Amino acid sequence: MSQETQPSPDHGGQPDPVPDPVLASFRKSIDNIDAALIHILAERFRITQAVGEYKARATLPPADPDREARQIARLRKLSEEADLDPEFSEKFLRFIIDEVIRHHEQARGG
Amino acid sequence: MSQETQPSPDHGGQPDPVPDPVLASFRKSIDNIDAALIHILAERFRITQAVGEYKARATLPPADPDREARQIARLRKLSEEADLDPEFSEKFLRFIIDEVIRHHEQARGG
Repeated sequence: MSQETQPSPDHGGQPDPVPDPVLASFRKSIDNIDAALIHILAERFRITQAVGEYKARATLPPADPDREARQIARLRKLSEEADLDPEFSEKFLRFIIDEVIRHHEQARGG
Repeated sequence: MSQETQPSPDHGGQPDPVPDPVLASFRKSIDNIDAALIHILAERFRITQAVGEYKARATLPPADPDREARQIARLRKLSEEADLDPEFSEKFLRFIIDEVIRHHEQARGG
């Protein structure tokens, strides 16, 4: 696939055609944050992939409910400190963990 | 609420009781990444809250389907470059946008 460093002519790399400069500035910040999120998530899945391979080699069980409970408790606490809804952060972690489980099932089941 | 800077004695601030040092190291990385994700998401919702308030003042429509289509196209492209499943990144953005819409509805409807 082609991976140009310059903006592509399609809408993938173009700024929003927003005449409102305040809204355009907000959207630029959101786009920067989303790029950061995507790259951090990519790194997280690299690690969970390595964890899956390690657990398979070490014949450790793929799921660990106690670990998940600790992760949720920790993220809820961090969320409160960051003024983020703890319910959302729990939903978010479940969303990510579901994807990790899907990856592990793909890696096992083929 | 209390927000200690030192680790709390409950499981919110304790390391995992994992005897396996390889697994413990992976989990430390995941925990660091998750803390980063939570804080970046908190900042993203701060911005979308400001966007919601600005749109209400400027009587701009709350949703913008063209903007969403551009965001999805951009994130799918970034995901491919980061070896992240583009389908996942699209699901992820929808998950975040659904939460933003929920916030906006709460702010309007009360």
